[in-house]
Amino acid sequence: MANSLFAFRSIRKVAFTSSASASVKWKGGVSLVQGASRGIGLEFAKQLLEKNDKGCVIATCRNPNGATGLLDLKNRFPERLDVLQLDLTVESTIEASAKSIKEKYGCLNLLINASGILSIPNVLQPETTLNKVEKSSLMLAYEVNAVGPILVIKHMSPLLKVGGTGIERDVAVVANLSARVGSIGDNRLGGWHSYRASKAALNQLTKSVSVEFGRKKDPVICILLHPGTVDTDLSRPFQRNVPEGKLFTKEFSVQKLLNIINNVKSHDNGKFFAWDGQEIPW
Amino acid sequence: MANSLFAFRSIRKVAFTSSASASVKWKGGVSLVQGASRGIGLEFAKQLLEKNDKGCVIATCRNPNGATGLLDLKNRFPERLDVLQLDLTVESTIEASAKSIKEKYGCLNLLINASGILSIPNVLQPETTLNKVEKSSLMLAYEVNAVGPILVIKHMSPLLKVGGTGIERDVAVVANLSARVGSIGDNRLGGWHSYRASKAALNQLTKSVSVEFGRKKDPVICILLHPGTVDTDLSRPFQRNVPEGKLFTKEFSVQKLLNIINNVKSHDNGKFFAWDGQEIPW
Repeated sequence: MANSLFAFRSIRKVAFTSSASASVKWKGGVSLVQGASRGIGLEFAKQLLEKNDKGCVIATCRNPNGATGLLDLKNRFPERLDVLQLDLTVESTIEASAKSIKEKYGCLNLLINASGILSIPNVLQPETTLNKVEKSSLMLAYEVNAVGPILVIKHMSPLLKVGGTGIERDVAVVANLSARVGSIGDNRLGGWHSYRASKAALNQLTKSVSVEFGRKKDPVICILLHPGTVDTDLSRPFQRNVPEGKLFTKEFSVQKLLNIINNVKSHDNGKFFAWDGQEIPW
Repeated sequence: MANSLFAFRSIRKVAFTSSASASVKWKGGVSLVQGASRGIGLEFAKQLLEKNDKGCVIATCRNPNGATGLLDLKNRFPERLDVLQLDLTVESTIEASAKSIKEKYGCLNLLINASGILSIPNVLQPETTLNKVEKSSLMLAYEVNAVGPILVIKHMSPLLKVGGTGIERDVAVVANLSARVGSIGDNRLGGWHSYRASKAALNQLTKSVSVEFGRKKDPVICILLHPGTVDTDLSRPFQRNVPEGKLFTKEFSVQKLLNIINNVKSHDNGKFFAWDGQEIPW
């Protein structure tokens, strides 16, 4: 693992030094998608590249060498996509990514935290009852779903700037993928303790960050997004009870979420939006 | 630490075997106050003993031998107070406490999770800005303020029963000490990331548990309580900006909170109340 990471970072470094300096204005903006190896994160990277003819995307994941979807995308957009190794549970990899982005781009106009865990066979299983709640599951879900994204914002925040030319937004945006089941007010079924608690905590952390960002001279808008139930590896074991027409494709959901991101206004700072633009109660 | 715990548990065991069997109905009910060495928890134990002429209280804390306030109370109420060692971060101590309570009392009519951490010199400090947020602080606050109380409820839940005779409530009650700063909707100042996130998560976990308890045949009501800003060790470093008349004594706050606990109805299950009975938004 350490070796493959080293190999990857070496390749990246060469690519970076051959590129533009930090002071260049990046036409179309610079976007970071954290958690982009598959699912919604990969689709965000894809649409950010496909739907604009300019703009750079940095996609991060734990294991870039195994991220076949990202590697395909890199082949299609070799100049506009950079793939960085970042493991949310290892803060030094977040710091290293921030350093790399600072050196190459000098700024970030959009940060999307798309990673998330709900179930891992034999490790983490959404709890149906209280007696199935395990400390290890609570702690792991919190570390990945709440702590990780906030540490990413912490280390990337000095880079967040209103984006270059050619993008629609006149503010920098941080978008954290949350989930409706993270809503406390909307919790009518119970269960899923680890996941629900981690997302409620992410909502609270994002709210605190949004208040601080609201005081910045350069506007940065921080929002939370519920993508709907999307046909990804994350939701696959739990799709049985999804009503007909409510299981979205990645393409549809991300299109809707990018529409929200591209049209945020300052009064949206700190809010929690569903894919259809409706606000979700805390 | 292990030795002093063993010594303490040995003393307790002698006391337990000299007492009544599990099948006895406990007049005035059996109450557990988790986190009772000082502050609001100690005051809960005190008022539960002083304001009823019957009823037993089990008070838990990390280090009973150093809990002078509890030891004084034990001297005043030797028959009605039991003190157990319980460290929220060590699940085996929660299990051991549940086993002891089951053996002696066979039931619990009230469970109050009163513990909480906000600041520990050189370890945990409420964050004023995002760049002061540390992973270790986020994880520790979550472990103590959110995970611990839920593990206590998990292990105590088989004991929760509508209480014997002589108490006002016709339901078993679980009351978790939360805080208004845990409210996401009410978060207008930002900061205090670790504490706020841990309390929002506690709120979500309690809500999930309340939904499950709402399906039980024996009614168990689960509520969250905001005690106000109370003059305790926890709030002391942060009392400077409290408006005049808004810094409560422990006596006043706990009196108000017990009034809420003693009057809960089934429609209060899963709600978040301030000391004055007002509901707090999530």
